[in-house]
Order: sequence, then structure tokens, then C-alpha cells
Amino acid sequence: MTLAQDRTTTPTRDEVFEAHEGGKLATRTTTPLADARDLSIAYTPGVADVCRAIADDAALAARYTWAHRLVVVVSDGTAVLGLGDIGPRAALPVMEGKSALFSSFAGLASIPLVLDTTDVDEIVETLVRLRPTFGAVNLEDVSAPRCFELERRLIEALDCPVMHDDQHGTAVVLLAALRGACAVQERALPDLRVVISGAGAAGIACARILLAAGAADVVLLDSRGVVDAGRGGVKAELAAVTNPRGVTGGIAEALAGADVFVGLSGSTVPPELLATMAPDGMVFALSNPDPEVHPDVAARHAAIVATGRSDFPNQINNVLAFPGIFRGALDAGARRITDRMLLAAAGAIADVASEGLSPSAIVPGPFDARVAPAVAAAVARAAVDEGVAPPA
Amino acid sequence: MTLAQDRTTTPTRDEVFEAHEGGKLATRTTTPLADARDLSIAYTPGVADVCRAIADDAALAARYTWAHRLVVVVSDGTAVLGLGDIGPRAALPVMEGKSALFSSFAGLASIPLVLDTTDVDEIVETLVRLRPTFGAVNLEDVSAPRCFELERRLIEALDCPVMHDDQHGTAVVLLAALRGACAVQERALPDLRVVISGAGAAGIACARILLAAGAADVVLLDSRGVVDAGRGGVKAELAAVTNPRGVTGGIAEALAGADVFVGLSGSTVPPELLATMAPDGMVFALSNPDPEVHPDVAARHAAIVATGRSDFPNQINNVLAFPGIFRGALDAGARRITDRMLLAAAGAIADVASEGLSPSAIVPGPFDARVAPAVAAAVARAAVDEGVAPPA
Repeated sequence: MTLAQDRTTTPTRDEVFEAHEGGKLATRTTTPLADARDLSIAYTPGVADVCRAIADDAALAARYTWAHRLVVVVSDGTAVLGLGDIGPRAALPVMEGKSALFSSFAGLASIPLVLDTTDVDEIVETLVRLRPTFGAVNLEDVSAPRCFELERRLIEALDCPVMHDDQHGTAVVLLAALRGACAVQERALPDLRVVISGAGAAGIACARILLAAGAADVVLLDSRGVVDAGRGGVKAELAAVTNPRGVTGGIAEALAGADVFVGLSGSTVPPELLATMAPDGMVFALSNPDPEVHPDVAARHAAIVATGRSDFPNQINNVLAFPGIFRGALDAGARRITDRMLLAAAGAIADVASEGLSPSAIVPGPFDARVAPAVAAAVARAAVDEGVAPPA
Repeated sequence: MTLAQDRTTTPTRDEVFEAHEGGKLATRTTTPLADARDLSIAYTPGVADVCRAIADDAALAARYTWAHRLVVVVSDGTAVLGLGDIGPRAALPVMEGKSALFSSFAGLASIPLVLDTTDVDEIVETLVRLRPTFGAVNLEDVSAPRCFELERRLIEALDCPVMHDDQHGTAVVLLAALRGACAVQERALPDLRVVISGAGAAGIACARILLAAGAADVVLLDSRGVVDAGRGGVKAELAAVTNPRGVTGGIAEALAGADVFVGLSGSTVPPELLATMAPDGMVFALSNPDPEVHPDVAARHAAIVATGRSDFPNQINNVLAFPGIFRGALDAGARRITDRMLLAAAGAIADVASEGLSPSAIVPGPFDARVAPAVAAAVARAAVDEGVAPPA
């Protein structure tokens, strides 16, 4: 039903371009500016009182400026969607869309900052200089492994929430969905053999959050096969905490007897390999726009199938996570976003899903209005509990 | 009448702070985001077509992103209103107000970028890195003489409209008002003896635009008196083209027999000195929030009086200029803002005023809805005529 409906109304190319004429964002004032009296409140001379108050007590900026509810969507355009390194100008429509989602789903202000440099030092330096301008940083579409260093450096340098959504947004929604799938099947995460195909930003973050949530058997693969200690950097770190059974080889060896397949590689997975998974398998074919396997094909070999596609059930969409995560972090005045806050976000999404749970509804739909407020509340609570935000 | 009305409803301090709760700006999306189909147009997968198109032809960014109608209001907070160097955080409410005016008066998008550095090299470098993010730069409240170098360097480094509004916005509106005053008195600018008190950003720019518009006798003063060749930098440049009669001394010597007084010094001018001006004098006491002389006092000695105050006639308010100037420059796709475009802006403001001209109406009111479109059209035309924008 949903499928057929969506397909008959698939947007045309013309429709897409028309919607992008002049861009997708606007700014507006939240105070009236219709006469001299309005102007004397919002601008000179009235504004001077507010400036003086902030000059005397910098903490008042959080209350009397928009900066503390403003998320900057930062990208250098090096890893955009399925398009790769297309540069900051061509990446801007994606970042505008992301900012639009922040305002529509979380009631936050958001602007894209696209950078004409791919140098990590320069990006950090630029945001440090702009620090008084914004309240939080959503890092977006930055290529691996630079994204790991950049996120770490920004968290160190900026005393505010910073999150690379391609990593953690994806990971949070995957974890929520996996919790939903476990609830449907009455199974427990620590008992599952999980295979993650793709060791880029999202694959690494998914492996990490599943481990943090209690998964005990995660096998991570990159294009060379199962990730082992011989890989450098971040992958070597992951090798140390994954693959407890010492699987060697590639996707075929990893999938034999596995319970969960998580595809984040942008490649394909042969259906005959899915057939070697354990009974009641779960397939998360998350590459966009083309999943590793068509959901109809995957459904022949797995009990639960999820993709990034809006025209099939169980859409794993970051929009379930990032608006509420940033809203919660900013509402709480959090200094950073922690693993515990991310786990709380996943829990909140899973809680919303728990009401109508079924094999084809392991996560809420992306337009479920209950999600963002629930995520925000859980994230804010976790921030306070962990002491990265002042007591509520 | 107007005066009494405005005074009885002067906003209270509480009212001002209440209007600033949460800041004065918001962002919104200009495309619907209510269902999966909307999302597939504005975000993935539809947006990828737009990204690809821009990657193939960078010029399409002007059409399909918001950057080319986005003015960034850039400040380091070193010379804010009458408050001085209060830093970027405390300056933000002013910049938010400015951005709000861009959206309300010119239909442009605008965001503040407040910088935690006062180093000219670093500010230039930061904006160069952010270049794909925006369409134009409104430089605001940067202290002199750094503002002159910063504006010049940004114009060189960025291939887009850049304007320090404290200089040129003020200058444009002053010129428009002086044209109106000349029309009322049936006098010509080249015949007037003009005294400008204050050789900061605004004073320098006013001297320059009056000279460009045909003024032949401008005497510029700073705190040490009439500016002469002994001053350094920009002031020395101005000394070479001002003070043709070789006046020496201070404000007393300069004002004796003068036709026009322009106050931009933040200090006061004794009424007895205004009494020494030539008959039918014009007084522009523009310091904010406190004019160099109360307009009622000035009116005893001058035929035409203008101030920055909204509760007296002839308000010289930059809002008459900057929204239309930037809108015209961006509409035309101008690479920069030239003197000719600024002169065209002043001409357009004066044209709007010409309909109801009187000694107490030498400029349009700040909320005259005819002004911004007229300025934008004149500026765009001038840009094309001068060859800094492509043919219309």
C-alpha cells in the first residue's frame, strides 16, 4: 500500500529543482519590526541595555541571544551522501536540508557553514574563532578517517555539543531499531552475532554503540575483509574489541551463522550469503540511496528487514535521532554529547516504537511527532545525570 | 505630536529584555517537510540531483542554494553603538537586530557571525574559508582604523559585495538627507561649506561620499582639531582632499561661516558655536543615542536639523540604505559594492523624499516601504552600468 502510493508519486527531477530555487532556508525575526517603537526595542537604543548586561555577565548570552539554540551544520563536502567528495558548494543543498530538518523537527535554529578547506587544523581554528556565534555543531559529510580526528578535536576545543551525525545519528537509530527487533523476537542483544559490513564513519560508530549497549559478538568488515589489528588508527582500536571468535576472511565467513547483518558499505551483499545466516536473522541494509540488498530479496532470508528507504517498512532515518539529541543537549545546557546521552536517545526512540511493535515496525516512522520530544527529554536527563549539564 | 506620542510609550527596560528572550532570530525552511515525499524532494534522495548539478556547474549554486541571498553580519564587537569594545558575545544582540532588519526590510536571509578574534588577518582568513556559505558581508561595529584595512582586505579576498555599514550606510543616508536639504533650500552641494566633526569610520566615509558627490569645501575634524597632513594613514589621505581654505584650529574656527555641521564624534557642540554658522545653516547631529546638540536647541541656530533619533523629524537611519544596497547588489549578482552604487543608493533615497519635501522631511521615514525597493533597483542598475555585475 504505502509502497505503491509512494512509487506512483515519486518526485520528478523538475519538481526537485523547482523546490530548490533560491535555496531551502530563510531567516526571520521573532520580534516585531513594524514601527519606530519596535525598532527602539529590538535595535538601537534599547538593545544597548541587553549588550551591557551580557558584557557584565557573559552567562546571560544564553538567555538573550539566539546563539544558544543555534546548531551550525558544518561540512567540507568531502563525503556527501553517495556522491563522495563534491566540495562545499555542491554539498550546500544537503546542509540546507539538514538545517531545515533541525528547525522543522526540533524547533531549533540552524544554518549551514560550508568550508573551503579540508584541513582539520583550519576547520577547528575557524570554528574556534566563530565560537560566540553558535550553540552546537552538527558535523556532516566529512570523509573518514579525518572525521574522527575532526570530531575529537572540536569536542576538545569547543565547550559545547559537537556531533558527527553520519557516525552517531546512524548508530543511535540502528541501536534503537535493533532493540525493537530484539523485543519483537524476545531475544537479547548480548546473545546476537552481529556482522557490520563497512568500516567508515557510520560502521565504526555502529560497532561502538552496539558494544556500549551490551553486544558481545560484533564482527566488523572493511573492503579487505574482517578488520584485524593489522589495520591502522581507529580500525585497530576496533579490532581489539570486536571479533571475539577470531573469524578470518571476508563477508562469507562472517555471515555464516550470524544473527544480524548491518550493511553500511555502499556495496552489495549476495542473497546466497544471507541464506547462510542463522534462523530468524535480521538484515539492516542501510546504504543510501541503494541498499546492499533489495528489501524484498532480503525478506526471503531474514525475519526482519530494515533499510534507509522511505518506501519500505523499518526506515532507519537519522532524523529520528539528531533533532532530539541536539534539542536535548541545548535545552540542558550540556557542555558536550556523551555516549550515555546517545544511549539514552536510542532508548527513547525504542520506547516510542514499543507501543506498536511488529516485524515491520521496529522503529517509529520518521514523522512520528512523539520521537523528537522524547529523545530531547531523555538526552537532557542523561546530560544532567552524567554531570555534563547543570542540575535542572 | 509624534514626539509626545513616542515619549509616553518609551519601552521599559523589562520590555526590552523580554523581547530578547531566546534571541531575535529564527530559521525556517521554505519547502514543506511534512511527509516522506517532501523529505525525498528537499533531502535524500532528491537533493543529490541538485548537488550533482552544482558539482558539474558551480554557477548553479547561485540559483539552487540560499547562499546567494544570505548576508552575513560580521563583527568582532570592538566598536558597538555607544558602548565601545564589549566583545563578540555582548555585541551579538546588535548583530541579531541587524540581521532581523535585513530580513524584514529587504527580504534577504541574514545571520550574525561574531568573531572571537580582533586580528584582521584572522578575520579575513576565517571569511575566506567560509566563502561558499554566504553571498555578501555586512561588516559591523569594528573599530577604526582596523575597519578600513579589514574592509579593503575583504573586498580584495572575497569576490562578493562587502560593506562596512558604519561607514557607508551612514554616508549614503547623510548624502541623501543633504540632497533633500539642498532641494528644500534650492542650494547646490558644491556651494556649501561642510564641517564634519569626528574622523572615525562614519566621519571618514561621509567626507569621502560628499566629495564624490561634488562637495568642494569639506573640513574634517578629529579630537585634535582640523585634520591635516600630519595625521597618519587614512586621515592623511583625507587631509589632502579636504580643507581647501586651509582652516586651522578646532571646531570653533571650522564652524565660523559654515553652512553644514555634521556631528559624528560622540561629543557635544556648544550652541554658541552653531550661532556662528552662516544663515540657513544645516545641522546633522548624528551621534547615537545622544546627538551632539539637542535638536530643539539646534533649531534655534539652524534652518534644518537632523539627528539619529526616532522621536524627532529627519531621522538619519542606516536602515534607509543597507537593506536596499545589499538587496540590489545580490539581485544583480554584483562582485562588489562601488562608490557609484553608493551614490545611486543616495540618489534613490533622495528621489523618494522629493515627493513630500520640507525642512522637517528631508529624508523618508525609516518605515517608508518605497525606499528599499527603490534603492535596490538603483544599486542593481548602477552595478550593471559599471560592469561589476553581468548585464541584466
